Order: sequence, then C-alpha cells, then structure tokens
Amino acid sequence: MAVNLKPPKPGDLLPVKGVRLGVAQAGIRKSGRKDLLVVALAEGAKVAGVFTQNRFCAAPVQVAKEHLASGRPTRALVVNTGNANAGTGKAGIADARASCEAAARLLGCDARDVLPFSTGVIMEPLPLERIVAGLPACVADLREDNWARAADAIMTTDTVPKATSRRAGGGAAVTGIAKGAGMIRPDMATMLGFVATDAVVPQRALERLVADAAAGSFNRISVDGDTSTNDAFILIATGAAGRCDQAVLRDAVLEVSQGLAQAIVRDGEGATKFITVRVEKGRNEKECASVAYAIAHSPLVKTAFFASDPNLGRLLAAIGNSGVRDLDVDRVELYLDDVQVAKQGGRAPGYREEDGKRVMGKSEITVRVVLKRGNASVTVWTCDLSHEYVTINAEYRT
Amino acid sequence: MAVNLKPPKPGDLLPVKGVRLGVAQAGIRKSGRKDLLVVALAEGAKVAGVFTQNRFCAAPVQVAKEHLASGRPTRALVVNTGNANAGTGKAGIADARASCEAAARLLGCDARDVLPFSTGVIMEPLPLERIVAGLPACVADLREDNWARAADAIMTTDTVPKATSRRAGGGAAVTGIAKGAGMIRPDMATMLGFVATDAVVPQRALERLVADAAAGSFNRISVDGDTSTNDAFILIATGAAGRCDQAVLRDAVLEVSQGLAQAIVRDGEGATKFITVRVEKGRNEKECASVAYAIAHSPLVKTAFFASDPNLGRLLAAIGNSGVRDLDVDRVELYLDDVQVAKQGGRAPGYREEDGKRVMGKSEITVRVVLKRGNASVTVWTCDLSHEYVTINAEYRT
Repeated sequence: MAVNLKPPKPGDLLPVKGVRLGVAQAGIRKSGRKDLLVVALAEGAKVAGVFTQNRFCAAPVQVAKEHLASGRPTRALVVNTGNANAGTGKAGIADARASCEAAARLLGCDARDVLPFSTGVIMEPLPLERIVAGLPACVADLREDNWARAADAIMTTDTVPKATSRRAGGGAAVTGIAKGAGMIRPDMATMLGFVATDAVVPQRALERLVADAAAGSFNRISVDGDTSTNDAFILIATGAAGRCDQAVLRDAVLEVSQGLAQAIVRDGEGATKFITVRVEKGRNEKECASVAYAIAHSPLVKTAFFASDPNLGRLLAAIGNSGVRDLDVDRVELYLDDVQVAKQGGRAPGYREEDGKRVMGKSEITVRVVLKRGNASVTVWTCDLSHEYVTINAEYRT
Repeated sequence: MAVNLKPPKPGDLLPVKGVRLGVAQAGIRKSGRKDLLVVALAEGAKVAGVFTQNRFCAAPVQVAKEHLASGRPTRALVVNTGNANAGTGKAGIADARASCEAAARLLGCDARDVLPFSTGVIMEPLPLERIVAGLPACVADLREDNWARAADAIMTTDTVPKATSRRAGGGAAVTGIAKGAGMIRPDMATMLGFVATDAVVPQRALERLVADAAAGSFNRISVDGDTSTNDAFILIATGAAGRCDQAVLRDAVLEVSQGLAQAIVRDGEGATKFITVRVEKGRNEKECASVAYAIAHSPLVKTAFFASDPNLGRLLAAIGNSGVRDLDVDRVELYLDDVQVAKQGGRAPGYREEDGKRVMGKSEITVRVVLKRGNASVTVWTCDLSHEYVTINAEYRT
C-alpha cells in the first residue's frame, strides 16, 4: 500500500568507507526473515544521536544514551526487530547490556563501545539467547555494500525497505536507512534511522548536525500521533573519505534524512495518500507546528483524505482545534494544492466542489494554511487513515 | 453498534414544568427524518451554557453566546441537525440571527431571547429558508412530554437517541438530551447537550452548576480526539416546581450529564467497546487528565481494544507519551479491570496473557493507572477504534 515508494536498488546506495553492515536470521519473532543487524565502525568514527522523549523509553534507548555519554568511541550498533525491549523494567536493561557484551566479544571491543537498538512488540521479554546466537552470522556477513540488506533486516510492519544515498562533495558519501510505519509521531527522532557519512565531521558539529537534521525531517512527520518508546536517529561520520565542504554535507544529510522520513510516511500503516501540510505566516514555528499537527492528527481529516472526499470543513475544525488560543480565523486562508478553499472564516467565493474533488483524488496532496500573523512556517508530512490501518493494528500480534 | 445503550422509553423521561419541546421535518439534509427542534421556555426560566473552545466556533455558537451575555431572559432554543453553520463566515452569522428572528416572531418575543444551535456538515451554507419554513410545525408541536422526540430530532451520525431523567427532590425533575458520536473531544462541553430542571436555581448558581456538570461529564469523554466547532451544553432552570435541596439537585444534574456524556461514547462512531480510563494518585488533575487522554486518544490503544488483543505495551507507550515530563515510570502501576498488568516499569510478575485476554474480550473495560505521586484522580470515558469508524467518516457526506 506504500504511496509512490519503491525499494532502493542495491546499486543506488553508496558504500560509506569505514561502515560495514551484516545481517542474520535470528528467529526473534517471525521465522524466515532477517531480523538482526550489526553495524561495525572503523576506528575513529564519530557518532551522535537523538532519542525518543517518551517517558517509557525502551531499555536499549537508555543503554545507548548511557554508552554515547561515556565519551568512549562507538565501534558497533546492534539492531534487532520483532521485540522492542520496552516496558521490560530492570531485566530489559540487563538484556540490552548483555547483547552489547556479546557483540563486543565478537568484535574485540568494550561493551560500552556498542549501542543497542530494538523495535517490535512492547512489554515482552527480549529473547536474548536468540540474539546472542545470531550475532556471529551478522559479524561473518559484515560488508560495506550491505546497506540494502540492512534496510530490509530492520523492518517491522514496513512494507518497503527504506534507504537513500547522496554524494556530499569531495568524494564523501551520505547513506542512511530507516524503519517505521506505525506509532509514528517522532519527538526528537524516529523509530530507528541510521545515517552515515565518510566525511570528516568534528564531534560537536556532528551533534548539531544530527539535531538539525532530525528537526527538519523525522521530527516533522506523523502517521498516527503515537510517539514510540524506541525512537532513535543516529548519525555516523567515519572520516575515512577526508574533509568536505560542511555546508554541502549538511544539505546532503538533511536530504537523506528527509527522504527517509518521507519514506516512513509513504509506507505509513495503511497509507493510500501522502499529505504535505504546510503552515505559513505564523508568529513562530511552535504555533505553525501546532496547526500542522492538529491537521495531521485529526482522524476526521485523515478519513476524509482516505475517502477522497472534499469534506474540507474538517480542516477548518482542526485548525480551530490547534490550541492557538488567539488565532483570528477570519484571516486564515486554506489551499488544497492550487485550489483556494477558505478565506475570511468561511468558504472561498471561487471554491467549487469539483476542484476540491479533483485534488482529493490524487495520491499526493499539499494542504497549505496561511495564518497571516507573522513570518514563520513549518512543513509536516503525514498520510491518510484507512481500513488497512485498523486491520494492521488490530492484528499486529497475530 | 452502540455499546450497551438503549433508546430511552418516552415514559422514562420526566416532563420539566415550563419547558415545551416541538419537532419538525424541515428537509435540511436528509429527507424522511425530524431535523428541527424548538424548545420554548416559560417566563422566568434561567439559562446558562458552556461552549466549544475551537477557534473556528460555529456561527450559532457565537450568536448564542452573544444572546446569553445580553442579560435578557431566554425564551427559546432553535436546534437544527444536518448543517453545522460553521466555517461559514459573515453569512453564517446572518443566517443564525435570521433563524432566531423567525422563531421570535412565532413565539412573540425578541430575537435576542432565542438561542440558535446547529450540528452537521461544516463549511456549507445553512439552508435558512427550509429552517424558517419548518419552524411553524415545531411551534404547533410544542409539548412538555416531547423529550424523547426531541432527542431523536437532534441526531446526526448517532444511532441511538440520548436522553435521561432524574428526580431532584422536592418534586423537581432534571431531564436532559444530547447528541454526538464523532468529532467528540469536548473542551468545555459537547456537541449539543440540553439539560433542564423545574427547580428554582439563581442565575449565578446555575452558571457554576453548568460549568461543574460539564467538567465532570462532557469534558471527560473522547471518541476521536477532535473537538467540534459546535459544542454547546445548556442548563435550564424554569423554577416552576419551586425550591429544592441544592446539593440533591447538583447530584441529579451531574448524574444526568454523565449519563448523557457516557451515552455519546457508547454510541461513538463505530464503537464496539466502552472504556473507562481512571488515573489515580497524580500530583494534580491536569497531569491525570493528560495521562488519561494520552490513552484515550492513542489509535494504537484503540485498535488493540477493537481487536480484543491484550497488546498492553501500547498502554505503557501512551502513558509515557502523555507529556508529563518528570513521570517516574518505575512507580507506575497499570490495571485492566482487576488484573494487574504492569508495575516498576515493566510487566507485573503475576500477569498472565489469558487474564489480559479475558478482560479485553469484554464490552466494558476499566483501565486504571496509578501514578503514585500525589492524591489527584481523573476519570475519562472513551471507546475503541474500529473499521466502522473509518467507514462512517469516509462516507459521511455520501
């Protein structure tokens, strides 16, 4: 059901010097599919990350944050799908540490140099033995040109693997993978995104870059308004390809991150439409984001998109519902692609139902809201709410 | 699909002295059904109301608030279904005023003594002529024992009319009707609730009572998290039955209001389950409500209820997602009816999947969250998210 989203061709994904990836079939939850990934980093690679703000943040998130904060060099990531190791208490923390220890033994580094990531069902014990048993096969599989298989190995309800790549100038590459289709309303980062470059980036600059890239990509998407317990977005810079123009690199990292974030929405659970919500001329980004998310999270707006029904009063209701208390609705203008729908608190005089119907029938639609009270703007990407979303989430564990 | 909700029997609804109701078929949107209601109040009746906080509040809401604020006695309410007269700009305001004028002419009062209410499709012009043409039939139909037919005449996607009644001591009656099934996350009041008593209540006391009753009933329900443009909750005291104990009256008004609010959830669009979310031992009501609504609004939680699937990690994710930033999840306890699901940040040791499954299979379920950080508590009522919700809202205008 993914909206205009094709799996990456292995040849499209640039290897990143100093980053090797290996996958295995550990049988964590479903048999017959790759579900374990190890990413091994060359010595000197720098890593920065942003993580979920959910208070029930998963054990691997807690351990990864602690290991990153230790200031030690990161040498590997261990990523499993099928089990989130979230809502698992102290035992979950111990399991996350044990998976790092097992990987460290195989790679000849310290357990604190390994970052763990998990995704899948919440509040079930992590099948640690199966992960430990699967790690040697991952290590044996480590290769620089394994990005496409890595993208495949981290999928849960995703229907299409998500990966993208850019040249960043000076011979440097930027390549990233991500997973996520439901429980998507990132609040710092998304349900697992990994982007790597072989450009040289100093640690402080890398930390700024990962925060900026998240803010302009993963933090601007929503499938269902539910923030996951396991969100993590990791940026790796190995330095193996030498220095490059930092502005060019920055653009490449943001482009790759946006591509991955948008891929998550295109493959949103049950999605049949890809919706861009752009809010313009607000007083500040916060209020623009409030209006954009009020639209992106409204089940009534989302079902209208699913039905291709220009029941556009629901958009006005969502805007009015955004919590911007002093919003003067008589100034608000609303556009659907090129069609002006509303102005001065009501339907635009020139609006015709058939124009609304034409746009609503498309698979890619831009909603544009002009608040006329300032110069800030924000863009958010979302999808519709279909029967398939209910089916997927009603049957998730069966 | 309503959950354990039967239409009221006409004999169950106590007439309220001084309140006459009349309905008619005005053909506003669908033919063959009653869609217009006039409530006529005896001289001396006092009226207080609370209204939606949605910034795109409907024209009738604006006019009703203005008429109430004028300090003049309210003599009638005019209520139409099929069209919300919201997002209709200046023309909508003029239409709302014109409907008051038409009713005032028939009833021999001033237009400012009439309060207008509309519900239905947003951003379509109100068919004023049809309303004006239907008013004489409403007036001819005015009777004190017409509450059940009035409840029927204000339905939109409701499948069951909602009305309930209590004795309030001293011969006074409290009777109320409400409508609403979708776009339900009231923020002051719900999508039309009218409660009347023939007890004597001073104006200031009535204003406090309507606010308190809304806070404990309509402001504690959610179907889909969307706050309507047309919410209004009106409390009428005619005084015709004389004085009664104000504490007894207060309890009766709250009971009637809660009964109506819960009826809206039981008849929530596509609802198959009625869920009570109780959050206890929070620091204050605000944070209890944040946690309760995070659960009540999570599409993932709601689809799990629909599927009767004890995928209860989703409840933890929703709690962690409530915006209570300093919440210590290691202290949180979670119960499903009598079954303890989680404690100390993870699954409760005694929890068994079959116990979770047994409770999830019921049509009425209580989720209880114990925060262990204070003495405040809040209860919210909600329903599940089913295929039927998507169907109803995808096909609403067809």
